[in-house]
Amino acid sequence: MLGPGWTGSPAARATGDSAYLRALLEAEAALTRAQAALGLAPAEAADAVTRAADPARFDPRSLAGRARAGGNPVIPLVADLTAAVGEPYGPYVHRGATSQDILDTATMLVAARALEAVLADLARTERALARHSAAHRDTPMPGRTLTQHAVPTTFGLKAAGWRSLVLDARDRVARVREALPAQLGGAAGTLAAFAAYGTWDATALTEAYAREVGLVAAPLPWHGLRTPVADLAGALAFTAGALGKIGEDVLTLSRTEIGEVSEGSGGASSAMPHKANPVRSTLLVAAARRAPQLAATLYGCVAAGDERPAGAWHAEWEPLRELLRLTGGAVRDAAELAEGLRVHAGAMRRNLDLTHGLIVTERLSAALAPHLGRSRAKELLTELARRTVREGRLLGELLAGEVELRELDLDLAALTDPARYTGFAGDLTDRALERR
Amino acid sequence: MLGPGWTGSPAARATGDSAYLRALLEAEAALTRAQAALGLAPAEAADAVTRAADPARFDPRSLAGRARAGGNPVIPLVADLTAAVGEPYGPYVHRGATSQDILDTATMLVAARALEAVLADLARTERALARHSAAHRDTPMPGRTLTQHAVPTTFGLKAAGWRSLVLDARDRVARVREALPAQLGGAAGTLAAFAAYGTWDATALTEAYAREVGLVAAPLPWHGLRTPVADLAGALAFTAGALGKIGEDVLTLSRTEIGEVSEGSGGASSAMPHKANPVRSTLLVAAARRAPQLAATLYGCVAAGDERPAGAWHAEWEPLRELLRLTGGAVRDAAELAEGLRVHAGAMRRNLDLTHGLIVTERLSAALAPHLGRSRAKELLTELARRTVREGRLLGELLAGEVELRELDLDLAALTDPARYTGFAGDLTDRALERR
Amino acid sequence: MLGPGWTGSPAARATGDSAYLRALLEAEAALTRAQAALGLAPAEAADAVTRAADPARFDPRSLAGRARAGGNPVIPLVADLTAAVGEPYGPYVHRGATSQDILDTATMLVAARALEAVLADLARTERALARHSAAHRDTPMPGRTLTQHAVPTTFGLKAAGWRSLVLDARDRVARVREALPAQLGGAAGTLAAFAAYGTWDATALTEAYAREVGLVAAPLPWHGLRTPVADLAGALAFTAGALGKIGEDVLTLSRTEIGEVSEGSGGASSAMPHKANPVRSTLLVAAARRAPQLAATLYGCVAAGDERPAGAWHAEWEPLRELLRLTGGAVRDAAELAEGLRVHAGAMRRNLDLTHGLIVTERLSAALAPHLGRSRAKELLTELARRTVREGRLLGELLAGEVELRELDLDLAALTDPARYTGFAGDLTDRALERR
Amino acid sequence: MLGPGWTGSPAARATGDSAYLRALLEAEAALTRAQAALGLAPAEAADAVTRAADPARFDPRSLAGRARAGGNPVIPLVADLTAAVGEPYGPYVHRGATSQDILDTATMLVAARALEAVLADLARTERALARHSAAHRDTPMPGRTLTQHAVPTTFGLKAAGWRSLVLDARDRVARVREALPAQLGGAAGTLAAFAAYGTWDATALTEAYAREVGLVAAPLPWHGLRTPVADLAGALAFTAGALGKIGEDVLTLSRTEIGEVSEGSGGASSAMPHKANPVRSTLLVAAARRAPQLAATLYGCVAAGDERPAGAWHAEWEPLRELLRLTGGAVRDAAELAEGLRVHAGAMRRNLDLTHGLIVTERLSAALAPHLGRSRAKELLTELARRTVREGRLLGELLAGEVELRELDLDLAALTDPARYTGFAGDLTDRALERR
Repeated sequence: MLGPGWTGSPAARATGDSAYLRALLEAEAALTRAQAALGLAPAEAADAVTRAADPARFDPRSLAGRARAGGNPVIPLVADLTAAVGEPYGPYVHRGATSQDILDTATMLVAARALEAVLADLARTERALARHSAAHRDTPMPGRTLTQHAVPTTFGLKAAGWRSLVLDARDRVARVREALPAQLGGAAGTLAAFAAYGTWDATALTEAYAREVGLVAAPLPWHGLRTPVADLAGALAFTAGALGKIGEDVLTLSRTEIGEVSEGSGGASSAMPHKANPVRSTLLVAAARRAPQLAATLYGCVAAGDERPAGAWHAEWEPLRELLRLTGGAVRDAAELAEGLRVHAGAMRRNLDLTHGLIVTERLSAALAPHLGRSRAKELLTELARRTVREGRLLGELLAGEVELRELDLDLAALTDPARYTGFAGDLTDRALERR
Repeated sequence: MLGPGWTGSPAARATGDSAYLRALLEAEAALTRAQAALGLAPAEAADAVTRAADPARFDPRSLAGRARAGGNPVIPLVADLTAAVGEPYGPYVHRGATSQDILDTATMLVAARALEAVLADLARTERALARHSAAHRDTPMPGRTLTQHAVPTTFGLKAAGWRSLVLDARDRVARVREALPAQLGGAAGTLAAFAAYGTWDATALTEAYAREVGLVAAPLPWHGLRTPVADLAGALAFTAGALGKIGEDVLTLSRTEIGEVSEGSGGASSAMPHKANPVRSTLLVAAARRAPQLAATLYGCVAAGDERPAGAWHAEWEPLRELLRLTGGAVRDAAELAEGLRVHAGAMRRNLDLTHGLIVTERLSAALAPHLGRSRAKELLTELARRTVREGRLLGELLAGEVELRELDLDLAALTDPARYTGFAGDLTDRALERR
Repeated sequence: MLGPGWTGSPAARATGDSAYLRALLEAEAALTRAQAALGLAPAEAADAVTRAADPARFDPRSLAGRARAGGNPVIPLVADLTAAVGEPYGPYVHRGATSQDILDTATMLVAARALEAVLADLARTERALARHSAAHRDTPMPGRTLTQHAVPTTFGLKAAGWRSLVLDARDRVARVREALPAQLGGAAGTLAAFAAYGTWDATALTEAYAREVGLVAAPLPWHGLRTPVADLAGALAFTAGALGKIGEDVLTLSRTEIGEVSEGSGGASSAMPHKANPVRSTLLVAAARRAPQLAATLYGCVAAGDERPAGAWHAEWEPLRELLRLTGGAVRDAAELAEGLRVHAGAMRRNLDLTHGLIVTERLSAALAPHLGRSRAKELLTELARRTVREGRLLGELLAGEVELRELDLDLAALTDPARYTGFAGDLTDRALERR
Repeated sequence: MLGPGWTGSPAARATGDSAYLRALLEAEAALTRAQAALGLAPAEAADAVTRAADPARFDPRSLAGRARAGGNPVIPLVADLTAAVGEPYGPYVHRGATSQDILDTATMLVAARALEAVLADLARTERALARHSAAHRDTPMPGRTLTQHAVPTTFGLKAAGWRSLVLDARDRVARVREALPAQLGGAAGTLAAFAAYGTWDATALTEAYAREVGLVAAPLPWHGLRTPVADLAGALAFTAGALGKIGEDVLTLSRTEIGEVSEGSGGASSAMPHKANPVRSTLLVAAARRAPQLAATLYGCVAAGDERPAGAWHAEWEPLRELLRLTGGAVRDAAELAEGLRVHAGAMRRNLDLTHGLIVTERLSAALAPHLGRSRAKELLTELARRTVREGRLLGELLAGEVELRELDLDLAALTDPARYTGFAGDLTDRALERR
């Protein structure tokens, strides 16, 4: 009820308790199948475990309650699954494994599915932003730095920048997605129990297991070597931040006084019928405020002691889930925001004129310096800037009145037109849009 | 399923979706009653709203889904509650309020209840630690610094230290608990709508509302002034840290090689029948790794823009809930850990002898310096320390063989007995236990 | 060079390497004096150590380099100080203490001095904000929620809210300041060495030491009980956040399009002569983005193992120093910002009219509901809001044209005047300003 | 004085104020040279600026002080550099650029140099760990999970795991290092001023600039698109965490009671001559506690508003510097730790026997189950485990006395020898060492 940013999203479904339960059962069944594939267990055992590993037959709430005693949900799950398989194949359940093998593998399965959802919505977002960027390649608007109008830019370049962040996020998420490993190490990462049960080739076992669960085979058990979790943390925190940047900008641009963009469907206010809140960007910003600290907790858990850590492992579970669904929800919001965003070129144009031409002072400095010298040019412009503000008159008008400029034959109209001082915004936009 | 540290705890119940729904409805009903108390609404309206505000009549899942559009759950709740009240009193639902008034007030109600659970389990923890501390006032054990034996200490002093942290946590939590405020400000914190509906005294209204919900009346609406949330963050992060310290120490002391304490009921291993894992302390340590970053998110939200912030407010909801239940769960674990903790004085004594007497070198430095001079004393002890390690002999034995010490008439047996070098541990313990 | 927010501030001076060196030496000298006061050392030793403990005689750079071997700067400092004292009183330097006694005590001294600077600048900030609040008690401006105009508020109330955060910060900082403790525990917190050197009363020694350094005597050595550091973390993170809120608001209000406030002396741009950047609020916001994570590190260090922790202690030093000077610098910026802030009531008035009257829709709902019924009133206002936006006409004008309203004899001019819909802003401001 | 973990390290030198000053000057000189290369400035100007940009001619302290007004150090630096160049080429200093172009570029230069130092020490660490791993490929030791002995492992596998983390860190750092971009965008990222000064090809200019500073040319100005900083944050936080894992393990293994490894040169204690503190691993752990939150601040700054952000940019500077030198210092400590680490195979062997054979219960379960059935085997082992603990006898001895096992002809000596139950530790080690 407190998560409007992610409730109901594909990432939420991919990370719920049911999704974890399903993944845990997949991890268990895959383990028996992998042993059967290597001739270490009867094929019938693999079938029996796979059949019994049906999420509908298990009660997540009861498992959660019983997880408390041993500190993880795999212990009661193994008991229930063994009972569900029954004799004679019950003993093949979880054989040789440790709880962490199963929970880590299941977590990677959950992550893989959540990242698929993230990638799909990043793609939607990217496409919508590409459309806006192309459509507004030459739509001038104020460039804002430290909150103040600096020089003009274009909405095309702005949207191209947003899109480039989205593509950066996609690249990082995709790279992590492709490397998510299965976990198999046994009690202390030596795979010793599998040897005791007859395995003669650790690599073959690890690869068979990875194949069965559809993840990558890790060169070493990673119970205490948490690179995969840290990589997820980084990619997700970056993604949330990238979308947060879009959210921050949309919030600013949709302020009542600015009005340069608006969300497709603003949120209603409970008290004020006229008000359309920028809800999607609000939620993007909220996610970006939370994700870095969730990632920090996960990075902190890399410093994990022993063969299997007491605490550092347990501290990962919920923050990783939250980071997956928070970011997954944010991407959904970003896609909707990007697809529905309305761009108000007229307001942008009006805002460009708010400073009465001062927004192009930089250009005038460059244009006047060769004629007046750099310091005289600066002096003159500073003086005229002051008069522009004080008298509320246009800079171009004041310039036209300056005697020392009259003979220079400058095209003051062009020089003081903000729409004609967008630099290389168009070229940069074109180049950025070539990236796929 | 991923939260064995808090699932099923009183704090979990106090912070679940049902608890929030109940608190939201209480906040709405209290608002109508407060207006009725000031004559701004008919008493019948207050009755009708209070009756309709029955959690059983609302569907948290549907509210959660509909919260997405406007970005918070109060908007659909007001619609459902208004419908539930029906005519003619429906219009008195939420009259004059903004969503944030209700959600902030409900959050403070939830926090108040969760903190009560925290305080109750802190009290249990403190009592159990006081017992251990008194019982082991004079039980010597190695004092460990930078992981190495330094000089002896006592388990009584150690437990007294843990208890003092628990009392510090209690004091901080209690102080925050007593100050939790109701929220009432209307759309932008001016209470203007209430004026429009006839209120003439903002203070009276605010106080009536606070009385009805059982919270403190704030001097100003705090939509954008988030002191209460920051105070919660600090008190909870400290509490989690304090319990994490106990967890860290118990993990260390219950290592296979150390064995000075063990948890009352260790967690079973799925593969190794002999193993009893220190599960409670593991979960304490896990909570302590997460709480600081949740608090950081909340402290970060203090820098909230405008009269009601876009994002900084929304980013508070889930982290605060998580911090409440994470810490609430940790306190439950701490209470069970403290109550069940088994202390192995024999192992402590054995470990004191592990360094063959080197653990009292500091004392010998002090005892020999007046006779030999500080630098000769240090030189001699360093040499003997080396021989102790190399030859595996007792320091006392080596000292007895030193010619220059023979005539000094030192009681070497006493001087080298770790159990007699616990300094003021007993006095410090006594003094610490006087604190209530 | 990368810290314009704190360079040159009183807090920077209070936390520099020289300040730490001075505090370390004070802590050492106070220890010998405390022992002399109890008759455990000759008065001459106390004099000799106090005289030798002159910061000018020590080289912080050399100490820093030599700190690496043992992992803390006290070890080489004790060597240098002992040499500086020379015979016969050199042996009284650091007698009975552990490095952490000295470094923790010195850190509290540094913190105490930095907090004094913080409190002084919080007081300046508070006074300036009180002036603005009183001066603009009735200056109407748009109340903004989720970035959109909601209903009017006043600048007086806004400034009163800022001030209330500053007072909250002051209260928290002052409370922590008053409780900063000296540290004295010896090697493992039992004060055993002091017993070996002849102390018979741990309390007397602890109190004498606290008196000599001007800090509070702690009931227990707190080498591994880090409440004082956590309390500092919380108070400072809150302070930085509170000032960050002011910064966020000033940044928004000084946007080119809004222009309701401006900093007294804006920062110049290197390229654009017309631009005045809101530098002070920029730096406040930057500090507020950093402080929570510094505090998180410190809260994380509460979970410290053993009698003296390996790592958790060392991880505190730099973050605490940074938090002190970051926050100390922010308070200086806040004081200058508040004192120099220029408030543009005219721009506020103009902005109130930007929505053509829609900013008072809430009031009209309340006023029309009794006549038209709540649902008809809402319907009508929603329709007129749409027309206001579409046709660019004033809401009041459209209302005047509505037949069903004509006979109601409403004072539409008053009802639609934003300046007359500030609710209890004045009363709330008055009440808030009573707080001292 | 508070940073023994990084003081004096190559990373510290690469990130000091002098290093930043030098990098800022390089960035300025490169800009003029790039313009000269494209014919936009006279070659003499490029020479003059390059000559004047000599760090020895600038005063970092004065720059730091004057940075306060405008909020960044580039503004006063440009003034000083322009003066140093003098007429007629002074006007070519910083022409067309914004402060952020220079500071971001300089920061990337600093980062590049610090990462080189990090990579060099990661390589040293990796080599030393490879040696330990190969040398102890078959040295058995207790595998510890949740702090308890689980099953045996080898020190070779443990060191191989540490090394794999170091290689993971190397891969991530190297990838980020290669992508560090120059920054060039002008006032609002459109490169407009360069157009005004005559540039006709933004790509050519950007590439010339990148070439001159030795960084990568970015496709877009990244004033508000902070991927490079976020990537640094992730790679560095991971590296610090990876080294922290090594530190945690060494701290545990060098505990007085465990004694399986010791640091080459332990830190001396100021009071206890016998004590050798594991200082290097202590500092590694301390760094790992801090880095994640520094990274979180940087990830948080990705959500930066506008074309150039007010605060989010400024908040990056110090945390990035700290993260570079904290991690750079940690890698130096890790290299020294790895190179000097002493491994005590005898202590490992002794500790393996601490549980009287219980450490191989898992193997016995596997061996007995085919004969006795899984449940009877478990029952028998649980009973014998209890007796082992209670009676202090060896598990093998108790097994030998069990009637039902006598006829099975089991090689109990082999089955209960911990050294023969290391599973695939050897194979895994071999495979891991193949990675380069």
